[in-house]
Amino acid sequence: MTQIFNFSAGPAVLPKPVLERAQAEMLNWHGSGMSVMEMSHRGKEFTSILEKTEADLRQLLKIPSNYKVLFLQGGAIAENAMIPLNLLNGKAADYAVTGGWSKRSVEDASAYGKINVVASTEADKYTYVPDFSTWALNQDAAYLHICTNENMSGVEFVDLPNTNGVPIVADMSSHILSREIDVSKYGVIYGGAQKNIGPAGLCIVIVREDLLGHASPLTPAVFNWK
Amino acid sequence: MTQIFNFSAGPAVLPKPVLERAQAEMLNWHGSGMSVMEMSHRGKEFTSILEKTEADLRQLLKIPSNYKVLFLQGGAIAENAMIPLNLLNGKAADYAVTGGWSKRSVEDASAYGKINVVASTEADKYTYVPDFSTWALNQDAAYLHICTNENMSGVEFVDLPNTNGVPIVADMSSHILSREIDVSKYGVIYGGAQKNIGPAGLCIVIVREDLLGHASPLTPAVFNWK
Repeated sequence: MTQIFNFSAGPAVLPKPVLERAQAEMLNWHGSGMSVMEMSHRGKEFTSILEKTEADLRQLLKIPSNYKVLFLQGGAIAENAMIPLNLLNGKAADYAVTGGWSKRSVEDASAYGKINVVASTEADKYTYVPDFSTWALNQDAAYLHICTNENMSGVEFVDLPNTNGVPIVADMSSHILSREIDVSKYGVIYGGAQKNIGPAGLCIVIVREDLLGHASPLTPAVFNWK
Repeated sequence: MTQIFNFSAGPAVLPKPVLERAQAEMLNWHGSGMSVMEMSHRGKEFTSILEKTEADLRQLLKIPSNYKVLFLQGGAIAENAMIPLNLLNGKAADYAVTGGWSKRSVEDASAYGKINVVASTEADKYTYVPDFSTWALNQDAAYLHICTNENMSGVEFVDLPNTNGVPIVADMSSHILSREIDVSKYGVIYGGAQKNIGPAGLCIVIVREDLLGHASPLTPAVFNWK
């Protein structure tokens, strides 16, 4: 067997020991007599997997106890709609456009309320993060949205603007878990799993508790973070 | 090893040969040198899997060529929102309530437009499908929604009402693929995979082509059927 290593910025190579363990447990997970794909979603076996996954993520990212961890579907693209639906609450929001992903976030969010682009490097082909002193931040914004790593153009945030308390919402799909971060500096962190966490199919949303409970009635029930 | 057979009406037992094949191919799918979880979503290997899956489903259900097959996330619960978002187009819709799932569909759809409950057996504890002659169908409805198998109370449709051309949208989550159906009698057929098709995580939507292209601007982009 010739092993192929796919290093693309989407679904990509997984650690061989992870695949070998999934293989070994395929027909009988931890002596349960079932595959993980055959278990009740309400059973103690699956519940234990879910709880262990959240505990591991909380440990790796040092997630404070006043943040909830959500495991969702639809990817970061679905969250581009769910973020304004869950957070706008009648206000406007600030967005910084530093690459193709954050531009897409603005396009998708604009259906749900007023979106202010407070910084953009589109004219310079997305080659840098603009100096924060030039950002036209709004003090009454519901949130500021950024994409902390734009993998198409290769632009990564190494610092954050001072928003005077406006929650920062960060799409971290392509570099989450690559290093330690201070979660407490963010209101919401989200990312599709397929780039930097694991196989495709999962989207992680980490949300500060005080930001829950403000969803629009238009939020599809399964994507209401509350 | 003691094998456990989970016959619950959710994630449940899968055929052993299916699990054994997934196990055998876990680190090297068809000589590709990669796991299916490591492939590019744009690569020829994954594309071939997607095409084969659709072709198999089309063969099993004899799906006419003027129907599109969509493989989505969010389950049938997400589609409860996406159906009115994709189909209402400023009109009202008719819903029959014959169990807990169709009641939930009414609740979720009501955020997006006018929903008329044209039949309900809630007062009789969801024990039967009411005689179609008693249904208060609206000729100008965007669609009629039914759940063709209510697995919580055990009520299954064996026939369909005459809607005079109003498209029938059917949640078939819990009995799809259990028998042949005449797809051409429906405008939309949908179902989460976890009850009757395969492991959890996938929702199938089969939609007649003329029903595409009418989505509300509020439809999250990744759930716009068009």
